[in-house]
Amino acid sequence: MAHHILFLGFIALTFSLALASSPLQDFCVAKTNSPVLVNGLACEDPKLSQANDFFFAGLHKPGNTSNFLGSAVTPVFAAQLPGLNTLGISMVRIDYAPWGLISPHTHPRATEILTVVEGTIYAAFVTSNPDNRLIAKILQKGDVFVFPEGLIHFQRNVGYGCAVAIAALNSENPGVITIANSVFGSNGPIPAEVLTKAFQLDKTAVDYLQSKF
Amino acid sequence: MAHHILFLGFIALTFSLALASSPLQDFCVAKTNSPVLVNGLACEDPKLSQANDFFFAGLHKPGNTSNFLGSAVTPVFAAQLPGLNTLGISMVRIDYAPWGLISPHTHPRATEILTVVEGTIYAAFVTSNPDNRLIAKILQKGDVFVFPEGLIHFQRNVGYGCAVAIAALNSENPGVITIANSVFGSNGPIPAEVLTKAFQLDKTAVDYLQSKF
Amino acid sequence: MAHHILFLGFIALTFSLALASSPLQDFCVAKTNSPVLVNGLACEDPKLSQANDFFFAGLHKPGNTSNFLGSAVTPVFAAQLPGLNTLGISMVRIDYAPWGLISPHTHPRATEILTVVEGTIYAAFVTSNPDNRLIAKILQKGDVFVFPEGLIHFQRNVGYGCAVAIAALNSENPGVITIANSVFGSNGPIPAEVLTKAFQLDKTAVDYLQSKF
Amino acid sequence: MAHHILFLGFIALTFSLALASSPLQDFCVAKTNSPVLVNGLACEDPKLSQANDFFFAGLHKPGNTSNFLGSAVTPVFAAQLPGLNTLGISMVRIDYAPWGLISPHTHPRATEILTVVEGTIYAAFVTSNPDNRLIAKILQKGDVFVFPEGLIHFQRNVGYGCAVAIAALNSENPGVITIANSVFGSNGPIPAEVLTKAFQLDKTAVDYLQSKF
Amino acid sequence: MAHHILFLGFIALTFSLALASSPLQDFCVAKTNSPVLVNGLACEDPKLSQANDFFFAGLHKPGNTSNFLGSAVTPVFAAQLPGLNTLGISMVRIDYAPWGLISPHTHPRATEILTVVEGTIYAAFVTSNPDNRLIAKILQKGDVFVFPEGLIHFQRNVGYGCAVAIAALNSENPGVITIANSVFGSNGPIPAEVLTKAFQLDKTAVDYLQSKF
Amino acid sequence: MAHHILFLGFIALTFSLALASSPLQDFCVAKTNSPVLVNGLACEDPKLSQANDFFFAGLHKPGNTSNFLGSAVTPVFAAQLPGLNTLGISMVRIDYAPWGLISPHTHPRATEILTVVEGTIYAAFVTSNPDNRLIAKILQKGDVFVFPEGLIHFQRNVGYGCAVAIAALNSENPGVITIANSVFGSNGPIPAEVLTKAFQLDKTAVDYLQSKF
Repeated sequence: MAHHILFLGFIALTFSLALASSPLQDFCVAKTNSPVLVNGLACEDPKLSQANDFFFAGLHKPGNTSNFLGSAVTPVFAAQLPGLNTLGISMVRIDYAPWGLISPHTHPRATEILTVVEGTIYAAFVTSNPDNRLIAKILQKGDVFVFPEGLIHFQRNVGYGCAVAIAALNSENPGVITIANSVFGSNGPIPAEVLTKAFQLDKTAVDYLQSKF
Repeated sequence: MAHHILFLGFIALTFSLALASSPLQDFCVAKTNSPVLVNGLACEDPKLSQANDFFFAGLHKPGNTSNFLGSAVTPVFAAQLPGLNTLGISMVRIDYAPWGLISPHTHPRATEILTVVEGTIYAAFVTSNPDNRLIAKILQKGDVFVFPEGLIHFQRNVGYGCAVAIAALNSENPGVITIANSVFGSNGPIPAEVLTKAFQLDKTAVDYLQSKF
Repeated sequence: MAHHILFLGFIALTFSLALASSPLQDFCVAKTNSPVLVNGLACEDPKLSQANDFFFAGLHKPGNTSNFLGSAVTPVFAAQLPGLNTLGISMVRIDYAPWGLISPHTHPRATEILTVVEGTIYAAFVTSNPDNRLIAKILQKGDVFVFPEGLIHFQRNVGYGCAVAIAALNSENPGVITIANSVFGSNGPIPAEVLTKAFQLDKTAVDYLQSKF
Repeated sequence: MAHHILFLGFIALTFSLALASSPLQDFCVAKTNSPVLVNGLACEDPKLSQANDFFFAGLHKPGNTSNFLGSAVTPVFAAQLPGLNTLGISMVRIDYAPWGLISPHTHPRATEILTVVEGTIYAAFVTSNPDNRLIAKILQKGDVFVFPEGLIHFQRNVGYGCAVAIAALNSENPGVITIANSVFGSNGPIPAEVLTKAFQLDKTAVDYLQSKF
Repeated sequence: MAHHILFLGFIALTFSLALASSPLQDFCVAKTNSPVLVNGLACEDPKLSQANDFFFAGLHKPGNTSNFLGSAVTPVFAAQLPGLNTLGISMVRIDYAPWGLISPHTHPRATEILTVVEGTIYAAFVTSNPDNRLIAKILQKGDVFVFPEGLIHFQRNVGYGCAVAIAALNSENPGVITIANSVFGSNGPIPAEVLTKAFQLDKTAVDYLQSKF
Repeated sequence: MAHHILFLGFIALTFSLALASSPLQDFCVAKTNSPVLVNGLACEDPKLSQANDFFFAGLHKPGNTSNFLGSAVTPVFAAQLPGLNTLGISMVRIDYAPWGLISPHTHPRATEILTVVEGTIYAAFVTSNPDNRLIAKILQKGDVFVFPEGLIHFQRNVGYGCAVAIAALNSENPGVITIANSVFGSNGPIPAEVLTKAFQLDKTAVDYLQSKF
């Protein structure tokens, strides 16, 4: 039974639905490797659509949290579930190791709603300028919280075991911007003098951070 | 432990996010009992907003499935979680007793995405005219399925125990139209001659159905 | 002359406009048989667009109401009038034989507005759960009624002769879901045990209904 | 019978649906004289809504075309049919005396679809810069034509009797800008030197035009 | 220094952002000469996107105002800056010679905001029917004014030297309809009898105007 | 004259237009201190609207860059220009002292387009996960650049004097999230253990940063 509880401890689902345009037909299953690219994704012939196009398996499987943040996100976006294309909705499962962190991030094109399936999570978002208010709450199993569109938010496992959440965002491709990675780990670094000034860090600290991400 | 497993069998969450307009500020927490009604809901003073406005508790509690359909839906719409107002997203938990049914229904203003948290569910939707194709799939724990905006869909527990699902719809107020209730149980009955003709039922059958819903 | 009046009695037009995305150019005439499928329809070269692309003929012709419902719908959607593509609007003409019925249905992606051109129609829609209120009105020539997005609605000729209506929906491809066909006549039947439970019918009744649609 | 035909000659309906935001509830019937003004209109208590709120009578009555343009428009917007509020759709009936004209105009917030119910109409729109192509068609009874969002369009009765059309626009409040009135008859005149230069008219001509509108 | 002032006098920028659909990915750089046409523009492979795709040079250069209106518009729409595709925003620079005029026009798919960078401009818009109110203001350097979506508006240099403005519209392809050109200079003329009646001009005046534009 | 040039060096305008809902009337001028709060802002009586409601003065005045970032933003949002309410567009002027920085930030509800009016600016944005590509460009006077909705972006004066930019965003209330302030200076601090882990900083560094912002 201890093993069973441990297993449950790892079950974390996150549904994510992102803001999107309105559908103009019942569905428009994303066509893999379409030579033509459009806003969203081109569609397959609807006559060929099958139940599997609207289906994704494996959200019960815990993600691998063996990383320095102690967390894992399993996305179910249009790229993973092609039937979501044009429908403005998606999901994610989130696994948190003990003390695991989902680092501060934004979704540029979606609001997120989250429920805790197992464990105890500290969840928070910060309002925009000039208030930058921290709105934070400790969430237990069965609690639901919302992160408004585009605002910086994060979660942290503050319970004794693993934690799991299910979240949803109102876009089929909400996008994720992990602040630390985007700022200190961009592909092509942000000039050090921008970061030293913006974050009031010395050059050594910035060099150190850029080497980490 | 058997009891514990049974309890888990009842855990079913459904997140629902519905199509909505775009927010024009960080958030607009719904004001309870506002004397002024607008598209969506009027807002409280944002300076008074607190973490509890973005929070809902209790989605881990199984709904009461002691009804003739053997199912229960726990909604988390803007009415239950006022911080969802203007944000275009919502959730529901669904509990299915053994052989429980979520009756054929539509959401007039949302697409739905659903994941099975426990048990085995047969899920399906029907495309619009003229094809009326049934797109159906048996879903196990961890499977995800999508019901496109406005299409008739339903789920049925086809496993051996209870089942639970979490769903999300891309509106904070997606609406639910249970076909049988809307057609045979409307408040103010649909004239019997409409139903006899539409459903090719005799008057006795229609009278019987209208007495049931 | 009696024949002429009778002919007029059959004139019924229905304009339908469905909710759609915003246009990003003056127009985007639908390209017939485009190899690439997108949300909505791909466009022809606008330099080749001509007046005929924005034109449809024949809405004065009565539809053939020789069917068990005694009604006919003539759609003018983007499939019939390619210039409607991206523009979020469409039309239909509806013919009702005496006692003819437009069976309860929804438009998954549009609100509908309707005016009676000839005859007397009983029109109604049912609100969503939990109220399921029937909002009904007898409409005479020149009366206008609206069916809000996604709600179940129907009309019935309750006058002495034929009737005709013009309706419009705010999408160029609003979709139509005839409840009886979608529930009892889907291509791939809904399992009988779903329908017996949802509609509280016995298996014989469900088998009978499924054989009819 | 001649009288009867004449009467029919006057029947002209125009449905107009304008681009609008998405509804966030089944309906939001416009509240007359609400002290609070919002984008669109504030709503009445939905519990008080009745069938009459979704209803408008009189579109069979010909408008009075005894004016210098020989035309009349009967609008059915949210101001006339309060149930249209938030639903993104509206209608108009258009009556054309022989040689009557609907003067060049735009709808700032809607695409329009039109069908001819009686008579023969010349209908046209002009594309935007730099092409300014005239797309024109003579429409007979039963013909349908579309005027894309925001483009200048007009119709003229080119048949032998009266003509009537029904049109729809995809907004509940599409707006109408009659070019001649807006340019030469604004409330507070456009400075004459703007009009002389823009239209290459001499001051006398502009003064004359401004005195007319 | 007088020369320097003169040069500044010519600096006029107009940013224009037009109403558009929501993006479904970070960006969708417009693909030049795509064989497939869609609502908006098809995209290039995002892996190939470079900074130059989001860049346009030359808005500091005065446009050539040697024309009968004494004005020039330099657009930065998706056609000129391909990275704007799907992003719902654009810009223009406007140069006005002394007494130069931006002729009455509309943007069928956008609201415009404008600031004066140099000189003195009379700016105005006219509300829709039935009021047709002229809302006008003399703008000095640093003043900002807004022209609501779809309304007729114009600007005129009323200062002593050249003037320059920067404007923005909320679409990447807002469209421009110059009223005089669209009405009197359409490619394929509007029938003279339409214009004589709509503008209450005699045939000679209309013929003259049509020969000018 | 040197002084004059210096003054010009400070002229920097930023127009910002943010993604917003569609207007449902010509305009809806924001009502100051409305007791009722809605998505966006409630409107004044349109009969009382005057040209000044659509007007803002002072964008030619340099902002005060005497701060540790050496930059200043002058916003023209609906709060400053009430006529922008519902119209989905706004502007800002940006002043950069030599080496001045607009710190990395996002707009949660808008895309931004920017043009350089004076000076030389290094402008950049970072794409979302997993690529986090830096897309950067040095901009001279007259250059235009776009920052897609929700992405982290920044600018830095890299010329010899002051610099000025005009930007526009496609919302009347786009929101601004300055990353450093939101992360290290939130009102109610983000727990230090979140920041040490997310940014791989030691506790001393985080304490130092939180004391700074």
